[in-house]
Amino acid sequence: MDITTAITRQDCESLDQADPLHAFAAEFEPGEKGTLYFDANSVGAMPRAARANLDRLLSEWRRMRRRGWSESDWLDAPRRLGAKLAPILGASADEVIVCDTTSVNLFKALAAALALNPGRNRIVSEAATFPSDLYVAQELVRAFPGTAIDLVDEGGAIDPAVDDRTAVVYLSQVDYRNATRHDISTITRRAHERGAMTVWDLSHGAGAVPGDLDASGADFAVGCGYKYLCGGPGAPAWMFVARRHQDKVRPLLAGWMGHNDPFVFARDYTPGAGMKRFLVGTPAVLANAAMEAACDIWARVAPAAVFAKHASLGDLIVRLVDQGAAGPGVSLASSRESDRRGGFVALRHPHAPQVVAALGAANVIASYRPPDSIRFGLSALYHRHVEVWDAIERLAQILARETWRDPRFAAGKKI
Amino acid sequence: MDITTAITRQDCESLDQADPLHAFAAEFEPGEKGTLYFDANSVGAMPRAARANLDRLLSEWRRMRRRGWSESDWLDAPRRLGAKLAPILGASADEVIVCDTTSVNLFKALAAALALNPGRNRIVSEAATFPSDLYVAQELVRAFPGTAIDLVDEGGAIDPAVDDRTAVVYLSQVDYRNATRHDISTITRRAHERGAMTVWDLSHGAGAVPGDLDASGADFAVGCGYKYLCGGPGAPAWMFVARRHQDKVRPLLAGWMGHNDPFVFARDYTPGAGMKRFLVGTPAVLANAAMEAACDIWARVAPAAVFAKHASLGDLIVRLVDQGAAGPGVSLASSRESDRRGGFVALRHPHAPQVVAALGAANVIASYRPPDSIRFGLSALYHRHVEVWDAIERLAQILARETWRDPRFAAGKKI
Repeated sequence: MDITTAITRQDCESLDQADPLHAFAAEFEPGEKGTLYFDANSVGAMPRAARANLDRLLSEWRRMRRRGWSESDWLDAPRRLGAKLAPILGASADEVIVCDTTSVNLFKALAAALALNPGRNRIVSEAATFPSDLYVAQELVRAFPGTAIDLVDEGGAIDPAVDDRTAVVYLSQVDYRNATRHDISTITRRAHERGAMTVWDLSHGAGAVPGDLDASGADFAVGCGYKYLCGGPGAPAWMFVARRHQDKVRPLLAGWMGHNDPFVFARDYTPGAGMKRFLVGTPAVLANAAMEAACDIWARVAPAAVFAKHASLGDLIVRLVDQGAAGPGVSLASSRESDRRGGFVALRHPHAPQVVAALGAANVIASYRPPDSIRFGLSALYHRHVEVWDAIERLAQILARETWRDPRFAAGKKI
Repeated sequence: MDITTAITRQDCESLDQADPLHAFAAEFEPGEKGTLYFDANSVGAMPRAARANLDRLLSEWRRMRRRGWSESDWLDAPRRLGAKLAPILGASADEVIVCDTTSVNLFKALAAALALNPGRNRIVSEAATFPSDLYVAQELVRAFPGTAIDLVDEGGAIDPAVDDRTAVVYLSQVDYRNATRHDISTITRRAHERGAMTVWDLSHGAGAVPGDLDASGADFAVGCGYKYLCGGPGAPAWMFVARRHQDKVRPLLAGWMGHNDPFVFARDYTPGAGMKRFLVGTPAVLANAAMEAACDIWARVAPAAVFAKHASLGDLIVRLVDQGAAGPGVSLASSRESDRRGGFVALRHPHAPQVVAALGAANVIASYRPPDSIRFGLSALYHRHVEVWDAIERLAQILARETWRDPRFAAGKKI
């Protein structure tokens, strides 16, 4: 598009016509007619195949019962789903499993990283990292006496905080409030130069922006299954461990599915080879069925096309804010540069909670994070540029008319 | 029934006609016609309401997306499902949550129990405890330096192993191979007399035999959701913490759902009150929908009626073995006394894997555990006495004709 003149809705239509991922939108269930969902940062859309997958599983539950463990594909799902997700994460098929929740996987990854670096006792993280990640670390360190967490203040550089006492650099790839994205490659390289491991939480990046886990040299990573990855509300999470570390780690959180041969029922834990040892309990068979519908889409999509379209959708919001099309009083909270942004674009407004509530009433689903962030979660798989245009137009109307001052929006929305 | 003469199929019909739980069978999906499923110890039958619950959730995923977190009941499920399960466990509504897997919940419970007893450094368990439970403990103890596990050999008494160094008595209520059931009350009382905590795994008892968690004084307990409780393959597990301990424990495995107020996004972890602090990551919304169909049944059933009928089904197998109706070469591996048995009855046969495979080919689903156990998992909610009769009759035919010697049964079945 021509960046010297204002972008029009017709320009957006042209972008959509040229979109190589256009056909993927049809693989997702539409939501309510007329509603624009920009909440891929919270709950991604439902793949149409999720229902058929769940129907198959319900049928197996009904007919097979315990035989499903041996005669269906239930037990293999963590490995199989992980292999299908690996390309969009920039990982190899044998480096990713789907299991448990993001927080539980963070616990496993951080415990493993600390164990691999026993002579050191500092974890470097950020004050603005997603709070659950901090909670995991704050309580886990009790299992590693003498270990403490150094929090880099907001806006501070990570690099100077990493020294020869640092065991692990433990970061969210993307700031959950403003989408600011770290460069995994650079931070990982510098951490390695100083002898530190890295543990990355890609929840607000995976399925939207590059993770490049193998190319960046990342040691451990985890992420959410239900945001951009579209695995369904509360979907199982994923976990990545670089191949070079897998067989060196004895998991602190161990269970039978991580045993080398669980059905021998040996008394002693012998960790399985590779990623298997990072499994703990019985897989969530029904939840995996829904998640697999999403993984089957990710296995067919070209990651570069996803990242290019995602950047284009985000850049469109930036352009619209620049040309005043987003309405008065709103500014960009995220970076102008797509390679510095994660899965959403955040705008800033002093009455963000009320504006998000008013957007909801106008059938635009965005989300609020304190203190003043309005987040538009973008999916390269199902969003069209014209939907972004229409959402921003509705925002402009709300701001111009000050609709958000309506008392029914005073409570805001928390999630 | 008259115990002086052989029991007949007609006697079984009489028992079924008098069964006060008779109507509950209609709340479950039938399996394949002609197949007798005695695998409630592995995957319980599917409540008919599971499909409608999942349909509702798929519709919410499709229509509501992120609004489901605030406008539906997704986030409340761990507490709500736990409250519905509590009566069948003999617990109070505010002592049970549904979340994670059995192994992850064991980790949380054992870590909490050890933390509550810091002056002691021994865990007393059994060599024959379910292996995953041992794996959890074997690896977790690294977080509690100096702590070791004392394993009581098979058949040995727990009591003499508990002394003033014992922090926790850590046991399966029911032996997964032969259904031998511990008396939670007695062991817990003696543990408490010696200053030790108790952590119980009720996976092979909950929904079948009494747990009596409150009456027995149990400190911590966990269990599987997908066996007798009928929550669906890989269903979320449950966790019990006695009310007196809940607010004293700082969880080692912590996450945002356990925070006192997760949506304030505070930097520091402040554990929530009561059971909330034992939550970690985002709830498994779809899996909880299926599990809730089961919990809604448990909330309506009289626990005493469940336990009485379950005992009657198990006693019937004992009687049939006694009168030679189970065929040649088979003997009882479980106790003759129903109050010493868990959720299944195990028979012993030197070629158990082949016999279980031959039973499967004859449309009787049982399961094998090394070395020689044939397990019949019994559900008080959906099994009829005549089904037990018919299954044992088919077993007798297989043993009398030595059908199990057929080479196609040589591989056996592992799960």
